[in-house]
Amino acid sequence: MAEMGTTSGPEILLPIGPPRPGRPRRAQLESALREAVRTGRLAAGQRLPASRVLAGDLGVSRRLVVEVYTQLSAEGYLVGRPGSGTRVSDLPLPPATSAPAAPRSPDRSPRWDMRPGIPTLSAFPHHLWRRAWTAALGAAADSDLAYPDPAGHPRLRQVLAAYLGRVRGVDAHPERLLLCAGFTQGLHLLAHTLRARGARTVALEDPGLPHRAPILHQAGLTVLPVPVDHDGLLVDQLPEQGVDAVLTTPAHQFPTGAVLAPARRETLLAWAGRSGAIVIEDDYDGEFRFDRRAVGCLQGRAPDRVVYVGSASKTLAPALRLGWMVSPAELHTDLLPTKFLADHGSPTLDQLALAHLIEAGDYDRHIRAARTRYRTARQALQQAITRHDVPLRLVGTPAGVQTLATQLDGTHPDQLTARAQAIGIAFDSITRFQLTPDAVPLGVVIGYGNIAPHAIDEAIALLATITNGQRESP
Amino acid sequence: MAEMGTTSGPEILLPIGPPRPGRPRRAQLESALREAVRTGRLAAGQRLPASRVLAGDLGVSRRLVVEVYTQLSAEGYLVGRPGSGTRVSDLPLPPATSAPAAPRSPDRSPRWDMRPGIPTLSAFPHHLWRRAWTAALGAAADSDLAYPDPAGHPRLRQVLAAYLGRVRGVDAHPERLLLCAGFTQGLHLLAHTLRARGARTVALEDPGLPHRAPILHQAGLTVLPVPVDHDGLLVDQLPEQGVDAVLTTPAHQFPTGAVLAPARRETLLAWAGRSGAIVIEDDYDGEFRFDRRAVGCLQGRAPDRVVYVGSASKTLAPALRLGWMVSPAELHTDLLPTKFLADHGSPTLDQLALAHLIEAGDYDRHIRAARTRYRTARQALQQAITRHDVPLRLVGTPAGVQTLATQLDGTHPDQLTARAQAIGIAFDSITRFQLTPDAVPLGVVIGYGNIAPHAIDEAIALLATITNGQRESP
Repeated sequence: MAEMGTTSGPEILLPIGPPRPGRPRRAQLESALREAVRTGRLAAGQRLPASRVLAGDLGVSRRLVVEVYTQLSAEGYLVGRPGSGTRVSDLPLPPATSAPAAPRSPDRSPRWDMRPGIPTLSAFPHHLWRRAWTAALGAAADSDLAYPDPAGHPRLRQVLAAYLGRVRGVDAHPERLLLCAGFTQGLHLLAHTLRARGARTVALEDPGLPHRAPILHQAGLTVLPVPVDHDGLLVDQLPEQGVDAVLTTPAHQFPTGAVLAPARRETLLAWAGRSGAIVIEDDYDGEFRFDRRAVGCLQGRAPDRVVYVGSASKTLAPALRLGWMVSPAELHTDLLPTKFLADHGSPTLDQLALAHLIEAGDYDRHIRAARTRYRTARQALQQAITRHDVPLRLVGTPAGVQTLATQLDGTHPDQLTARAQAIGIAFDSITRFQLTPDAVPLGVVIGYGNIAPHAIDEAIALLATITNGQRESP
Repeated sequence: MAEMGTTSGPEILLPIGPPRPGRPRRAQLESALREAVRTGRLAAGQRLPASRVLAGDLGVSRRLVVEVYTQLSAEGYLVGRPGSGTRVSDLPLPPATSAPAAPRSPDRSPRWDMRPGIPTLSAFPHHLWRRAWTAALGAAADSDLAYPDPAGHPRLRQVLAAYLGRVRGVDAHPERLLLCAGFTQGLHLLAHTLRARGARTVALEDPGLPHRAPILHQAGLTVLPVPVDHDGLLVDQLPEQGVDAVLTTPAHQFPTGAVLAPARRETLLAWAGRSGAIVIEDDYDGEFRFDRRAVGCLQGRAPDRVVYVGSASKTLAPALRLGWMVSPAELHTDLLPTKFLADHGSPTLDQLALAHLIEAGDYDRHIRAARTRYRTARQALQQAITRHDVPLRLVGTPAGVQTLATQLDGTHPDQLTARAQAIGIAFDSITRFQLTPDAVPLGVVIGYGNIAPHAIDEAIALLATITNGQRESP
């Protein structure tokens, strides 16, 4: 970023240098703009050049610039205003909001996809899902085709409540279950509902899952990052007052892989009881623990203080947009109209299909098979790292579809990630998930969900040519 | 849990019954203990039997009991202390599980369902939709199962843009098309996006479709009702300044049935051009005009000022929650991150199914058949009213799935609606759709979409016993 691109129109200098080989132009532009906002080089309220102007200056397509602006708006860095174009957001941003490709272009699949958070898409149970969906359509009453129940179809709520109680220890009544379009919509509804009830501040795990902060910001909430360690969220760093809710991943902290320690679970619930705050439990991969049976959810311990949120995004596929939340009665009552005004309720046929899938036992069987596959994939990753002598150490509880890997040779994770990407291996630096800029860059986050075991070994062998300084051709 | 297991050692009763077939013993023991702690049956601090003792009492292995104790300790229900065994955690627990919300009143489908806005649910094209959906699932790439494109799947956007251009005269580019969960989500996204761009006031047709005002209010917008007459929205009552958007149903005003007159279309677009306001065109039943080819949409005349919103709620079924919007480029760019933060994008498989349905020509054929059915149903309604000499006059353009019926005998529409409901006939008084309390109560709004033609005659014959003062038994 030594050079500056100049723009006509609003007189500002954008810290964008000439293209660097090996890195997509779009990614360069995005990260340069993020960095400029983060560091204050582009001030809040500062107007950006029109997309056509910037495109001309940089010699890129206007579409690329529009995509970058869209992306950074999704992340909360920029806002668009009528008649006055795109400006730097004046929201209180966390110094380094992360967030990946919002509209991730579908066409740039890496050769070795080791990005975290993606299940084995090729193992989607086509046959089972078709059978369940067809049965659901065949059995649907005419009234099932009318406008949906905003809470979700009563049949799925009943089946799902029983499932969640049995498998995750959720204290779930069908009357307090709300179907939603994945965790994203769950948090969107919670954020707007809590804000309308007077909430101002939500604490977040740092590092944590992407996109959470912008959803909260958009609802007018302030975000408070709270660090995590090998026992999960540092609950004693939660302020005694002034926090209305805390978002946590107790079963398997993303991305560090920590399981919230028993004593901290107690402390967290006691804190919530004292302060009156709501605990939002994101159980994004609670079904996938490999070393022992998963720890039951927090919500079962304190159903009047905890909102449990789960989804089929990891168990089946993110494209289904099937999620669910169980809330304390009073909050649930307030969530219903928010959901109703947001989309009138979730699509019915997929809900009925999921009910069929669970009742037939196929959901459980599919999850068991997936758990075995992920356990094997993680072992393959560990073995490949050992075999090829790559200076990475897998940390965290063996669970889910990704792991944090700390670097033993002191390379900065951004550097390793960029060099891996240049040879076709995609994983993420932890900095993508860190909310505070001065956080220690612990390592890289490697997914093993959406890559075949033999490909894991290929990818790690290739990675060794970088990390071990051997410049072999792949 | 009728029986209690007794234990030696600490004298407590554990609410654990005999093994139930079909469920693992361990899961039973765990859930019984969780429930006992939750309900207070096992009090905080209460000491549990030693694992060996409980194992003996229950006739299970000691290892199983140790595993259960470990599990529940990890979940925070129990705590283990050296030298003093396992105890119930002393965390302040909720007195009991939260009471469920008040149960929903059971489905009360009326005997004769003549509510407006509902298509013929029994004519949902099960076979065609299953074929299209199955083809979509079969053809889906793995990447189609990942997190969706927030704008909608590129294939559907392409197919739908061509369809909307051909059938409704929409100036639709795939790059300005956004898939959404029906009109409700479309308006939700627009409201939040416009508000973030600085909008304050949105004008609405009065009377108009329900639920619109609360969606706008929730986003922090003020609502300005504007009256309609037999030529649609009274556009000359729109203030020259201070209105940021107007929501209108130009093809078939809901519920009066007026088509926006050509001169008013021009005036409306000129007003929008002068004032800088956005026109939101709700084309909720644009496919269903009976007397002539439908008027093309407004948006095609001024794609830089009009947002076109349509859905499959009337053409297929509301339960699918499939809707779409075409917006001016700059607004579209701002809508994308709003959609992304709201639900990450719409479910993919139904989008691909709709693309298949349209491409196969089945969507057009289904709509043609539905149009014939609705034309016949409206004629049946008119004939029944004449035959039974009911003092109602159908007004408005023959189109869609409902009609306004003015009353010739001066009965207040609320009164007629209530009396009809008492004998099993459901339709709506116009007062349900009026935003201003002192508006003239024009009549009742009668749907003919979700009722069989022979039933229409039955219902109107029965209605005659009310309106004509004859107390015949039905």
